[in-house]
Amino acid sequence: MTPAHTAHDNTPASPATMAKANPPSRSANPLERLAEALKPDMAAVNALIIDRMQSNIPLIPQLAGHLIAGGGKRIRPLLTLASAALFDYKGSRQHKLAACVEFIHTATLLHDDVVDESDQRRGKASANAVFGNEAAVLVGDFLFSRSFQLMVEDGSLEVLRILSNASAVIAEGEVLQLSTTNNIDTTEADYLKVIGAKTAELFAAACEVGGIVADRPAGECAALRDYGMYLGYGFQISDDVLDYAASEERLGKSLGDDFKEGKMTLPVLKALAKASPAEKDFWQRTMCDLDQKDGDLAEAQALIRKHKGLDLALAQARDFAAKGRKCLEALPGNGIRQDLAELIDFAVERDY
Amino acid sequence: MTPAHTAHDNTPASPATMAKANPPSRSANPLERLAEALKPDMAAVNALIIDRMQSNIPLIPQLAGHLIAGGGKRIRPLLTLASAALFDYKGSRQHKLAACVEFIHTATLLHDDVVDESDQRRGKASANAVFGNEAAVLVGDFLFSRSFQLMVEDGSLEVLRILSNASAVIAEGEVLQLSTTNNIDTTEADYLKVIGAKTAELFAAACEVGGIVADRPAGECAALRDYGMYLGYGFQISDDVLDYAASEERLGKSLGDDFKEGKMTLPVLKALAKASPAEKDFWQRTMCDLDQKDGDLAEAQALIRKHKGLDLALAQARDFAAKGRKCLEALPGNGIRQDLAELIDFAVERDY
Repeated sequence: MTPAHTAHDNTPASPATMAKANPPSRSANPLERLAEALKPDMAAVNALIIDRMQSNIPLIPQLAGHLIAGGGKRIRPLLTLASAALFDYKGSRQHKLAACVEFIHTATLLHDDVVDESDQRRGKASANAVFGNEAAVLVGDFLFSRSFQLMVEDGSLEVLRILSNASAVIAEGEVLQLSTTNNIDTTEADYLKVIGAKTAELFAAACEVGGIVADRPAGECAALRDYGMYLGYGFQISDDVLDYAASEERLGKSLGDDFKEGKMTLPVLKALAKASPAEKDFWQRTMCDLDQKDGDLAEAQALIRKHKGLDLALAQARDFAAKGRKCLEALPGNGIRQDLAELIDFAVERDY
Repeated sequence: MTPAHTAHDNTPASPATMAKANPPSRSANPLERLAEALKPDMAAVNALIIDRMQSNIPLIPQLAGHLIAGGGKRIRPLLTLASAALFDYKGSRQHKLAACVEFIHTATLLHDDVVDESDQRRGKASANAVFGNEAAVLVGDFLFSRSFQLMVEDGSLEVLRILSNASAVIAEGEVLQLSTTNNIDTTEADYLKVIGAKTAELFAAACEVGGIVADRPAGECAALRDYGMYLGYGFQISDDVLDYAASEERLGKSLGDDFKEGKMTLPVLKALAKASPAEKDFWQRTMCDLDQKDGDLAEAQALIRKHKGLDLALAQARDFAAKGRKCLEALPGNGIRQDLAELIDFAVERDY
């Protein structure tokens, strides 16, 4: 990816620039900035996650821990914390609910890796590769159930409604993705439906729940939800762009995974829309028939570049980012709101 | 299986016996009798199941329908209906919650078949064999989420607590079963832990929920729960006995599945407890190393017979049945209670 501007990338700024733009203690990356601002909350969430993934069956914390300790950006629980903090909510309900959101996400990752037969996740061996598909499916089920147990402890039917709806929509998105994978007739509308369901829905729910615990009016909760939805779209499109553009080392997973699996993501759909008959044959052979040979990924990248697939996809992601920032205007204007506004740009422009 | 007495088997009784024992219109099988007594309720549940497994993603109802239309005894939703009817509950909440219970069960079957790599379920091709493992995992997730959506619609946090706990325990039981499968060191205590979690827990929850909707005191709900738990133990032991003893045609699935997969069920554990060194080698080779050849299943059946494995297992199942019947004494003595008392014997003594 060669984004037109990388406002918040992760390369160290010179001390002089740092001093000018931010106080020295502030990270230039809004994700890190939010994590810093919400550090005690995030520590409480991490402690809860470790505590509540325990079971008398040792394989469960072993397997769950493999994935959870593997890191990841923890962006979804952070969104719940940030949304509650936006309203200066002083209680601790958001900790448990942020853990719920992360458990649901972890469960879908476990099932996703089984579905995709992935052998890597976050730069290390995937849980299914280490522990077997059976255990990955079942521990996913456990984390999913545990998440609902935590919601019941919290006791809000509204939160249960939001997160059970999100879970159903995620599963629908994943099933829909099965029918778009290796399918040359996939449209951009199909693609947007898939990423809306499998990614944006949980971002939206994570944000909305923060408003619910802070007991905010429906309009504000809806604005948060919409913000999360747009953030999710932007985040996923960026992810799909990075799969053709990132440096493998920074991405922490193999480049070209979507290509290898024949996932019809936006950069490919953009290139397909302008493909010559010969190019269309190439996409059919490589992504639909999965008949791939050395050099095909490079050829795919060249075709995407030729048709400006990354730029066009990123432009669409930036549209979502602009809409997401707009949603924040209905919400209180504290420092968290500024970080959330910058986060949505960062989600789109990041290079890892 | 050659049970010592088959009180409620499915072979037609002579007209004379029928007339003496039951009015001619009553089935000799308490499961069918309950289904008959609760026919309008069960019709409402079936309609709800069909209605709520729908989705805009056509593969979801196709796959779910394959399994749900495939029949099965519907014993779990029937337990919820019967438990509510035991108290003459007149509302309709039990319909939605019975559908929840069946969705959870269906989701676990889908994931179970993926885990076991089964190609048959209820006498026909399993969903994963027809639609692929990926779809089976994801549609299982959908049904599971849908079940929680239905519970939220019902609005009882107590029901949500019971069924989210049951779901977590089921997943734990399935994970535990992974470590007992192909493991010659499996103890009877391990086996009971597995079947308690993967089977009895949902039977218990299905019954308890019926008491909750009827708004009964905690003691009565607990008695129902305990009844369901014992019924589940008895039902599963009987299932495991049938896998070595039933006629394949009546069972609706292949005989010897547990043997082929190396599941250490009670009949095998009974035979193992008295095995000679050579017999132990046989079990090790066939069930742990899964090095099986023609005639091994017959040899396994002979060894189980030699050590009275089926009789001993059934005796244990009958103990559970007696305890379950005892729990019913704390509950109202209407016709449903009588059917539930006979159901627990039937669950143990059935030959299919």
